[in-house]
Amino acid sequence: MSDSLDPTDWESYRRTLHAAVDDVVDDLTRLRDEPAWRPVPDEVKAALTTPLPREGEPLEATYAAFAETIRPYPTGNAHPRFFGWVHGAGTPAGILAELLAAGMNANVGGREHAAVYVERQVVGWFRELFGFPTSASGILTSGTSMGNLLAVVAAREAARGEARLTAYASSAVHDSVAKALRIAGIGSTALRLIPTEPGRGMNPAALRDRIATDRAEGNHPFLVVGTAGSVDTGAFDPLDALATLCSEEQLWFHVDGAFGALAAASPEHAYLVEGIARADSLAFDAHKWLHAPYAVGCVLFHDAGAHRAAFASSPAYLTRGERGAAAGAPWFADYGLELSREFRALKVWFTLRHYGLARLGASIARTCALASALAERIAREPELELLAPVPLNVVCFRYRAAGLDEAALDAMNEAIAVEVQESGTAVPSTTRIAGRRALRACIVNHRTNEEDLAVLVEAVLAAGRALLKETT
Amino acid sequence: MSDSLDPTDWESYRRTLHAAVDDVVDDLTRLRDEPAWRPVPDEVKAALTTPLPREGEPLEATYAAFAETIRPYPTGNAHPRFFGWVHGAGTPAGILAELLAAGMNANVGGREHAAVYVERQVVGWFRELFGFPTSASGILTSGTSMGNLLAVVAAREAARGEARLTAYASSAVHDSVAKALRIAGIGSTALRLIPTEPGRGMNPAALRDRIATDRAEGNHPFLVVGTAGSVDTGAFDPLDALATLCSEEQLWFHVDGAFGALAAASPEHAYLVEGIARADSLAFDAHKWLHAPYAVGCVLFHDAGAHRAAFASSPAYLTRGERGAAAGAPWFADYGLELSREFRALKVWFTLRHYGLARLGASIARTCALASALAERIAREPELELLAPVPLNVVCFRYRAAGLDEAALDAMNEAIAVEVQESGTAVPSTTRIAGRRALRACIVNHRTNEEDLAVLVEAVLAAGRALLKETT
Repeated sequence: MSDSLDPTDWESYRRTLHAAVDDVVDDLTRLRDEPAWRPVPDEVKAALTTPLPREGEPLEATYAAFAETIRPYPTGNAHPRFFGWVHGAGTPAGILAELLAAGMNANVGGREHAAVYVERQVVGWFRELFGFPTSASGILTSGTSMGNLLAVVAAREAARGEARLTAYASSAVHDSVAKALRIAGIGSTALRLIPTEPGRGMNPAALRDRIATDRAEGNHPFLVVGTAGSVDTGAFDPLDALATLCSEEQLWFHVDGAFGALAAASPEHAYLVEGIARADSLAFDAHKWLHAPYAVGCVLFHDAGAHRAAFASSPAYLTRGERGAAAGAPWFADYGLELSREFRALKVWFTLRHYGLARLGASIARTCALASALAERIAREPELELLAPVPLNVVCFRYRAAGLDEAALDAMNEAIAVEVQESGTAVPSTTRIAGRRALRACIVNHRTNEEDLAVLVEAVLAAGRALLKETT
Repeated sequence: MSDSLDPTDWESYRRTLHAAVDDVVDDLTRLRDEPAWRPVPDEVKAALTTPLPREGEPLEATYAAFAETIRPYPTGNAHPRFFGWVHGAGTPAGILAELLAAGMNANVGGREHAAVYVERQVVGWFRELFGFPTSASGILTSGTSMGNLLAVVAAREAARGEARLTAYASSAVHDSVAKALRIAGIGSTALRLIPTEPGRGMNPAALRDRIATDRAEGNHPFLVVGTAGSVDTGAFDPLDALATLCSEEQLWFHVDGAFGALAAASPEHAYLVEGIARADSLAFDAHKWLHAPYAVGCVLFHDAGAHRAAFASSPAYLTRGERGAAAGAPWFADYGLELSREFRALKVWFTLRHYGLARLGASIARTCALASALAERIAREPELELLAPVPLNVVCFRYRAAGLDEAALDAMNEAIAVEVQESGTAVPSTTRIAGRRALRACIVNHRTNEEDLAVLVEAVLAAGRALLKETT
């Protein structure tokens, strides 16, 4: 056994990696022959509860355990009939990038090395995509939860000294905004939700009224969060109007564009994000509609100084150099939470270079077209009911049958989701739309096609009919 | 071109991945023939500033660009003579795990799939390692910066309603603690630094005095942060004594064990972390002394209820199921910031299973032995001066020469660090110890051996002598 953690037999290690590559590629090519999801068996759960390993085992043994207990039970999001939540599907280019990033094992907190310049380039590409000025700053994150937190903290710092801060968002805003306010010590009760119809955007007049009421009551409005693609229905707030309002009211304007901001990549959908370049900050994911492997998002700030002021520090052990390995200022560690940072940029760099924005945009447009087609199919089907407009790529609907009350319909649709998932046919998720339990098909996956939607509809109808027979 | 983002020619993709594997393995076997670090040339920086790619390119072209502009300019931390900051070196097993994780592309925010059970197992292994009870909760993080933030937020929530919160730590505490207090809205001025000698632990009596003073002044002490392995010198606070104090004073006791907590894995060093199991929360990294690829850390909480209360929420679109893909409660999203979460657990799972705790502990012990040997070598060398005790694996020293004042010595040692780095021989970093600029050799890398230390010493001496000749 080697003194280091390197193998004594490099060729054996090389063979294991090559075998893993073949298995990974085989898995991808066989996706359609596999179920969209399968339950984790109890014996697998038991196998994953063994105690801390004191002695090691050959790498081949660990790999065999992975192949037996882990790989057969994925989230399901790579599969073309996974419609649950908002999950990216991953790409072959992303897998290559992750292998290479692991080989380099860069720490992108700062210092002088190529990974820092790759992240700067990727941030620059996003700046360009969304029309932010070259003076804007940005940093890659683990996703929009982190991007929202960094924006909330920067907005709070910009309102320094004020008490009774209040923030505003559509009632369709993602939960991560309330969570960011909690973590930042402002509290989620400071978040005023402007009532908004499912599938629609926030009404600026209602927002303005609520701000005025808060000011009159001695509160200090500091932040408006616009939603670009709500999680429930894919709805967009009117970003340009909100930007104007925030400018007039002197409020920080943050856009949560987790997946919807990427509509900017599709020429026919870019109108939805009009005004996004006027945001003080914009957070979005690359692991959703860009399909970079989990996890990577980005947050952009119009005012690089405000961004840096909220997070910078400079202890002695992180002295920046003019030359040498400690050069490379400004360091990303000064623009976010983490001081050690993984090389998230490489998978985005590979994604944007290999596919190019045009093809990625076409893929995004295609998922929206599929969602429209699914909505039309549902509208034609008497046993199904559309529960919200479909402005983007999310279809909320339910199975219905005469004589069932709302509670029975809720229970039945919840059961349909489970039934369809457990059959392995497809994975819809569920949500509530105006109080009603909805089946939710979020079409993100670049592998999904018309036939997959037909399979989903037939599976829902079959499950609904079977459950109806049971209950009547 | 395929309609999806999958290749039309899977065999070509497979060949590219295999070629990448060979290049990654070749790089690892050739590490010692490469410089420990090399500057990023201006033409490479220029190549990484091209605009957003509108059209794509073949994957081979993207890979070729990576091989030319990115791979040759790594952080340096894989190299056996990288002694800068506290960087893990990565391992071959970690690379395999990252490839496999990218292939699965799991989202471990929640739901029912194997990755969730792998993360639970890894958290359980860490609970076992540190002696936390099975009722304790935990979550993998991007690193200790995030772990510290989650702990600070949970401690703040546990002190709900109190104003004028104050927190306490050794003056050697890592900057991420102050940053966590800033982000959490408490402010870094709330952090009282208890003066502590370089290489030593915090004095509990001084801490108790400061707490009493704060209480007398109407402040509300809520948190003590113990350091297990200070970043500057590897010093340990007396964790057991601090746990007792916190119990008596009814304060939340958090341990920042970023790298030092892993001393628990080495039987001969485990005494340093005595009392760590009594912490209310413990944050540490797996990408440092365990060498899992960047980035992965963990935070454990004694009181799972307090942990969950600080971060849980349950919007309609994240309804948990009893069965189906939405089962798997409790969801990790309720124990941290992120709702989408990457599969960080797999690289730790591979690391602990393949190497086993005993071998990992031996590797940790070996780096400490190397640090002791380096300290002895420096103590014997009249041109060198040890600037702090070496309780663990960090050696702070400087080159010295008669007739140079402190300012000249500072400048000279800063120049020596750059010179040694730019030569490619080795990468020390620098810090300040009691006001003096120090060369800092942090021995983390499992590949480092005695010969590497001899090369470092010779390089420092040669650079110092050359600079001395220039200045006199």
